[in-house]
Parts: sequence; structure tokens; C-alpha cells
Amino acid sequence: MPRFRLTIEYDGAPFNGWQRQADGRSIQQALEEALAKFTHETPAVIAAGRTDAGVHARGQVVHFDLARDFDAAKIREALNWHLKPDPVVCIDAAHVPESFHARVSAIARVYCYRLSLRRAPPALDRQVWHVGRAMDVGAMARAAAQLVGKHDFTTFRATSCQANSPVKTLDRLDIVAADDMIEVHARARSFLHHQVRNMVGTLKLVGDGKWTPGDVAKALAARDRRAGGPTAPPHGLCLMQVWY
Amino acid sequence: MPRFRLTIEYDGAPFNGWQRQADGRSIQQALEEALAKFTHETPAVIAAGRTDAGVHARGQVVHFDLARDFDAAKIREALNWHLKPDPVVCIDAAHVPESFHARVSAIARVYCYRLSLRRAPPALDRQVWHVGRAMDVGAMARAAAQLVGKHDFTTFRATSCQANSPVKTLDRLDIVAADDMIEVHARARSFLHHQVRNMVGTLKLVGDGKWTPGDVAKALAARDRRAGGPTAPPHGLCLMQVWY
Repeated sequence: MPRFRLTIEYDGAPFNGWQRQADGRSIQQALEEALAKFTHETPAVIAAGRTDAGVHARGQVVHFDLARDFDAAKIREALNWHLKPDPVVCIDAAHVPESFHARVSAIARVYCYRLSLRRAPPALDRQVWHVGRAMDVGAMARAAAQLVGKHDFTTFRATSCQANSPVKTLDRLDIVAADDMIEVHARARSFLHHQVRNMVGTLKLVGDGKWTPGDVAKALAARDRRAGGPTAPPHGLCLMQVWY
Repeated sequence: MPRFRLTIEYDGAPFNGWQRQADGRSIQQALEEALAKFTHETPAVIAAGRTDAGVHARGQVVHFDLARDFDAAKIREALNWHLKPDPVVCIDAAHVPESFHARVSAIARVYCYRLSLRRAPPALDRQVWHVGRAMDVGAMARAAAQLVGKHDFTTFRATSCQANSPVKTLDRLDIVAADDMIEVHARARSFLHHQVRNMVGTLKLVGDGKWTPGDVAKALAARDRRAGGPTAPPHGLCLMQVWY
């Protein structure tokens, strides 16, 4: 059976997350329904990152199999036609060998979390956490550096997380500040459930001057979710890239 | 009477343009209604640029007078509270002398028009004209250079334009290309109605290889709207800054 890889962009706001749910519409459902409309097949679409409700993607990667073969460019065009008016688009479609698996084959996921420091909320560029005041960027960067590397991330793991192990290797956690925006760039082979949002919620405590970078190191060492900061809201988070 | 200057950001999509209309909701109306809610006054709000339906702003400037004085920061905060959920926000509010006039005092307006060359339409960053294919950026830049300076811009003027003279001085018309996006940056003391959109619609013909830069010079010299290219759609245009 021909296997296809898609690169997908979406605005997470109107969806109940990536994964099909009993209640609410998911991005997976939107894609699978659009696919069925022209292939007349109902393959399961597997994603690299099962983003939560409200989380966006600029470079989500998915795969699926079809019984009948299609031109890859035609898949992209037909999907973009049938996905309308949902804010989900297929940026790229390609044939891949059956050994390719969007989730299992991924060697890194890159997320970006954006915080807006401007007093006024955003009327445009709404995919941000509106903090609305200045933050200590230097302290946030020093705190972020404490989290890079191989650690037990239990402190930053959702209690509902189903991963076998809380040990992950965080390759990058960069704080990039420009004008009245702070971007947190996170890269790892894989993340625990809510890990990026929980790290960002904790870094914000440092940016606010409520925590020191040392407090973040202590929270990490505690291996206890109750020792970490709150979960940052989903709408500031975007899955940027998946590496294979 | 105290006079106030506001800097305003808005998503033009849900509005019928800046100016109050018999049909549909305008940004002016949204602002005036929000202002009335806490000042209990109904001043006319005057804008630097009367943007068309669908056109966005990141730096629109407006002024109005109140009978009673208010703290400027309080005006900003109260406006942002009462403007919700409209996608209009007040970025800055300040007291200004009565000699200040948002439209008349302006010495330059800066607009940005964005064209997306990516095949897939935008799911995020929707404030673009989705062209969906590669364009000849060099030819567009050479064509844009033909329009800079003091000219009779009748060719790029809406037939409904009420300006006294079609002669305007275009200070800048820069083509900035990055990844799969082209930005057209336009700066002038003032513009004719639809001038930026008509120039962009014409530059796109050059980017598509249908016109040469020389054709644009000829169109300008013709001083006839019928010699120009089509009007680019409003949703790619944004009023970025007004200089005083």
C-alpha cells in the first residue's frame, strides 16, 4: 500500500486538539474527513505530535496508507480544497517508504512558545500568551539553561502523561527576545505531555521575578509536579518542525 | 477640551472599514461605542488613514476631544476592556495639544502589503494575498522604482477617489522578499484612494511576468485608471505607522 507523508499547518483555536475525541472536532478528524472525500478511503492519519486543544502547528508531520495510489501533489491540492473552511492546510505531500512512521521515526520535535509583553492584548498575531508587562529575559535564559540536557522531567509532566519514562533529553531551550515578544524555542527527540507548557509556565515565574533560576533547578530536582510552575495556556504554543 | 491621541491595532476582516457606514460595523463605530461606555461622551474619532473594508492596521493613529479630563493610561485600559471581543486594541494613549490632528498633522503614512507565494493557503498568518506561486522579485523591485517620486498617480487612483489632486509624492516603495513571502513597503505623506492596492495589483503583473517594469512606467504616464493593473485584495494590506 502506498504510504504518504504530509506537512500540515493549523490554527489550533477552533479544534479540540489533534486527536479524535468523543466531544468536539479534532484536527485528525478534519484531515481524515477531507481525505475520505476524494480518496473514498478512510485511513487512520498518524501524527508526529498529538498537540493539545488550542495548540497550533506550522510543521506537523503525519502519515497514512491508501489502497489506491495517488499523485502526491494531487493529494495536497485535493486536501486543501476539501479542508476549507477549516484552518488546516497541507503544505507538502510526498510518497514515503512503508518504513517511515510520523511518530516513531522522528528524531526531534521543535516547538515555539510565544509570550507577548505588550500592555495591549493582540488584535493581530493572536497565537501568543498575553503577559502584558516587561519580564527579566536574562533570568529566564539562565533558568532555561538549567533544564537543557538529560533529566527526569517529572516536575514538568502532566499527571495524566502516559509515557513509560519521565526521563527525556532536552536538546535546546532558547529564550529569544525581540521588541515586546519573547519566544521560547524547545527541541527534543520527544516531550512528555504538557512538558513545554509546564516549563514555560515555570520560566514565566522567573521572568516575573517570583522565582530565581536556582528555584527552577530545585524544582527539576524535586521530581514532583507540585514543585513546578503552572501550565502555560495552549494558544501560545506551536509545533514548528519535526526532524527525521 | 482635552484632546487625546491613540495608536490603534486592528484586524480588518470583520469590519466594513474604518469609517461609519449605514450598513455593517466599522472600526470607528467600535471605538466610539467603547469610548462612550466609560466616558459617557460621544466624541467623533478622527483617523489618520480611513482604511477600506478588510484592511488591517498595526499603527493607525486617531484623535478625539472629551469635555472631561481622563488619565491617558486609563483611557487605554478602559478602551481595551470595552472593545472586547472586537479585534481592535489601543496600543497607546496620550494627551496632545489641540493643534494636533490625526489626519492633517501626519507627515507620512507607512503601509505594508504582503503576498504569500506558498502553494498552500495560510492557516495561520491570514493577513496576506495568497498568490500561491513563485514571482520575479527583481522585476517587481525594478517596476516599483519607476513609481517612486512625485507623479500624477491617476492610473492608480480609485475612480471614486475624492482627493483634490492626483499628484502625490511616493517616498518609498520597497520590495522585501523572505522565504515564500513578498512584502511591499509603501511610504508617502498621503495616498490616493486604493493607491497602494492598485500599485500592488500592477506590481503583481510584473512578478507574474505578464508586464515588464517598462510597462509600469508607461501605465503611470498614461494617467488613466484603465491603463493600470487590477486592485489587490484588501486583506493583504496593513497600515503600519503614521509619522508626525
